[in-house]
Amino acid sequence: MKKLINNPDRVVEEMIEGMVAAYPNRIRRLPGTTVLVRKDAPVQGKVGLVSGGGSGHEPSHAGYLGKGMLDAAVCGEVFTSPTPDQVYEAIKAVDSGKGVLLIIKNYTGDIMNFEMAAEMAEAEGIKVAKVVVNDDVAVENSTYTTGRRGIAGTVFVHKIAGAMAERGASLEEVEAAAKKVIENVRSMGMALTPCIVPAAGKPGFELGEKEMEIGMGIHGEPGIEKTEIRPADEIAQTLTDKILDDLKLGEKDKVAVMINGLGGTPLMELYIINRKVAEILKGKNIEIHDTFVGNYMTSLEMAGCSVTLLKLDEQLTELLDAESDAIAFKR
Amino acid sequence: MKKLINNPDRVVEEMIEGMVAAYPNRIRRLPGTTVLVRKDAPVQGKVGLVSGGGSGHEPSHAGYLGKGMLDAAVCGEVFTSPTPDQVYEAIKAVDSGKGVLLIIKNYTGDIMNFEMAAEMAEAEGIKVAKVVVNDDVAVENSTYTTGRRGIAGTVFVHKIAGAMAERGASLEEVEAAAKKVIENVRSMGMALTPCIVPAAGKPGFELGEKEMEIGMGIHGEPGIEKTEIRPADEIAQTLTDKILDDLKLGEKDKVAVMINGLGGTPLMELYIINRKVAEILKGKNIEIHDTFVGNYMTSLEMAGCSVTLLKLDEQLTELLDAESDAIAFKR
Repeated sequence: MKKLINNPDRVVEEMIEGMVAAYPNRIRRLPGTTVLVRKDAPVQGKVGLVSGGGSGHEPSHAGYLGKGMLDAAVCGEVFTSPTPDQVYEAIKAVDSGKGVLLIIKNYTGDIMNFEMAAEMAEAEGIKVAKVVVNDDVAVENSTYTTGRRGIAGTVFVHKIAGAMAERGASLEEVEAAAKKVIENVRSMGMALTPCIVPAAGKPGFELGEKEMEIGMGIHGEPGIEKTEIRPADEIAQTLTDKILDDLKLGEKDKVAVMINGLGGTPLMELYIINRKVAEILKGKNIEIHDTFVGNYMTSLEMAGCSVTLLKLDEQLTELLDAESDAIAFKR
Repeated sequence: MKKLINNPDRVVEEMIEGMVAAYPNRIRRLPGTTVLVRKDAPVQGKVGLVSGGGSGHEPSHAGYLGKGMLDAAVCGEVFTSPTPDQVYEAIKAVDSGKGVLLIIKNYTGDIMNFEMAAEMAEAEGIKVAKVVVNDDVAVENSTYTTGRRGIAGTVFVHKIAGAMAERGASLEEVEAAAKKVIENVRSMGMALTPCIVPAAGKPGFELGEKEMEIGMGIHGEPGIEKTEIRPADEIAQTLTDKILDDLKLGEKDKVAVMINGLGGTPLMELYIINRKVAEILKGKNIEIHDTFVGNYMTSLEMAGCSVTLLKLDEQLTELLDAESDAIAFKR
């Protein structure tokens, strides 16, 4: 295991300390927790946005803290849901009286723990709403999931719900914007290599020297098929076709594109994937409003990528384009 | 070789196409070249900034195109200097009559080819100035270099010279700002794994399963020593100590910090490195003005990192903080 770490059991703790050291004017840690919040939380007159989940997906989720995106990110252990009490602390810290929206990726552990935290907060009189992101079209049900998994499309939920909240919208309005994104966003990924959870010390699965996996999850959950590595264009076609089958885009429809790296893939290769995805969309007369290429929702050092398409209407376009000063998503 | 590519000989061409497809409103390609420029180049009344070099270091250099940073990025083949005629096309495309600054990393091929291009442009009556970045304190002279290599500190040169140019400063003033950054910036890197140039198909060097290399260059040039992998804190200490030996920072001095990933390193690990670097600086009463953590100057999929410190005075601080809408360096 080749990693820049000190102690496999302290990676999340030390990452949090390193993040606070990097952005002391922008984020702070809730003492005694693994929760990072916007420095100015709770923001008066604004719905609070809380996301999080297992660590190892950086910049998800704490990289999306900032004006126009998240108010709190709860950091679980690597690939492990944060506990309800941590989520509860996050909710309390970002509620300004206007309520809190929880943005949850569809994993059984996350849903259970975020729901439990919501109940604890509601018992204290805090209004809480929840949305569950399930953008991964690869597989129905999976190792840690009933239904589809939530992956990189979650970042668009953060962005758009965050912009809505920043405008002073009500909890119901922010929740509705988040749900609209979820209804219109689809993703699919693939991996060239597995990744190693530091505390485990070895890969969670195996891929042969010439093998790749299509439809793999961000924790290494099995995908659709293991095959010999195919050219980038074929991979882009497979991922995009599966998304388009599901999203039902027509001519003149408008999308945002995210070509997401899983942590170990050079940016050069992500641009090569984007070249083909853009070509496919243009061939179908689908308008590309904006494109995001980079590491947004990673799996430690996994090599591979995911493609995300978000179908945009006027409202979603405006909210996507709105200002954000989040660490990893400046607009 | 596990890569998301189509043809090893076409990776740069297809990357360029993928970048233009991603940012059609922000950048354009000079027809028949591997030069990318700001969409609005040449910007009237502004000194033009040209950088570039071998590809494989993305987001360097085309990711730094935009208002407040670069006007043109010349993309060579992977780890190979661009030819003089390509650089010459870049110079011509961004000159508004106010002159052009070339920002060159200190590699023999780059220097030769950028200088030849400068002579060609000067023969056409274009004013050209050149600066050479040599921030890597690891080794004097190297495989492709006489003197120190230029690595991630180059990004600060782009940023600060770019801000100066955006203000309408003269070529001499922009050159002076760039030189001031070069005098005050130092970097050093290390690698856990080699990377594979697509056309070569195999790693440029070997590292054992438990081995790392300190002081390695961004093309895999040999460093100071190969040793058994050490804890992140020891690595951070080694890199920072070597930089501090050279940069001569005193109490109350102010710096910008860059923790740069080489392409295959999870962001989590870069934050763990930053935790220790920040602790060392605080222990010496050095003020950290701002910190940048991420992939800024990569080596394809190499796992590893570099640390860069830039000593700031009032002018450099102001220029570093100035607005930028560059793709990979929004401020």
